[in-house]
Amino acid sequence: MLTRAEVEQAQARAVAVLADAGIVLTPAEQREIEVADFGLGELEQTGLEVVVYVNTERVCAKELVMFAGQTCPEHLHPPFEGTSGKEETFRCRRGRVYLYTEGEPTPTPACRPPRSALGVYTVWHEIVLEPGDQYTIPPGTRHWFQAGPDGAIVSEFSTESRDELDIFTDPEIGRTTVVADG
Amino acid sequence: MLTRAEVEQAQARAVAVLADAGIVLTPAEQREIEVADFGLGELEQTGLEVVVYVNTERVCAKELVMFAGQTCPEHLHPPFEGTSGKEETFRCRRGRVYLYTEGEPTPTPACRPPRSALGVYTVWHEIVLEPGDQYTIPPGTRHWFQAGPDGAIVSEFSTESRDELDIFTDPEIGRTTVVADG
Repeated sequence: MLTRAEVEQAQARAVAVLADAGIVLTPAEQREIEVADFGLGELEQTGLEVVVYVNTERVCAKELVMFAGQTCPEHLHPPFEGTSGKEETFRCRRGRVYLYTEGEPTPTPACRPPRSALGVYTVWHEIVLEPGDQYTIPPGTRHWFQAGPDGAIVSEFSTESRDELDIFTDPEIGRTTVVADG
Repeated sequence: MLTRAEVEQAQARAVAVLADAGIVLTPAEQREIEVADFGLGELEQTGLEVVVYVNTERVCAKELVMFAGQTCPEHLHPPFEGTSGKEETFRCRRGRVYLYTEGEPTPTPACRPPRSALGVYTVWHEIVLEPGDQYTIPPGTRHWFQAGPDGAIVSEFSTESRDELDIFTDPEIGRTTVVADG
């Protein structure tokens, strides 16, 4: 759970990060930035700030802002409504992102995600993305990612996004951010 | 037809425009920028410079660079292989773009495209896009667009792009750029 003030503060930080990178948002887009704490209430550790440009039945594009060291926790996108599920490409715009997915585990991964001692991170094939680098995650593939020490901006190009269907490895996680009243 | 030198010069200009906007490309992406003259050989008037980030069977993302006053000529994306055809969203990043599509004609449109006297531009519903503005074109819908006096950068988010299927109103147009030898 986050307070309204925490959400607004995170939105303001994300707007500043994007503006610094020359990415222009409308006032409405700025107000609608999604601040996701994945239900853990530790936004600085496990969280993501998301601008959704478009999300139709066929195409989705987002800008992901990650604060320094922030982790998007391990999940996969399952099949739905006759589709194979969400296919997504991450393109790093600023900073550095460590992306982990299925495949040969990297012997000495750069990241140690929060709550990893609970066994809720199971894929360790590391891909390092710096500005201009990108990587495509097929549907149904477990993945997680963490920003480097300067944070990151990542453009996401995908098929329809149905976040509520995402399957997280950590059973404590809920995709919907609950904002406290008052 | 364009000469190799013309292609390389346009690529270098596009790289500079993108770099100025803080958009980072890899060296390979810089070399592979598509310079489209639509077969008319008048790139400054009718043309487009295109970075393709990703183009799978499901998702496509591109960056379009338009020099000052450059026009992407009128076309539509037809159905193919059981799909309804390409759905695309244009998001203006820099400069200004005048987008024309089907709908109520704008009484005094801002643009007069090249070759319009030949009747090869038939849709005149004007949408002006400035940085942060975007618009989604449904499949099978005629559209064309022209950059303003400072040029433009437009991000395109779409379903699979199969440019060779595009149907242009102007019968003289071919989508594939022919580059002269030598």
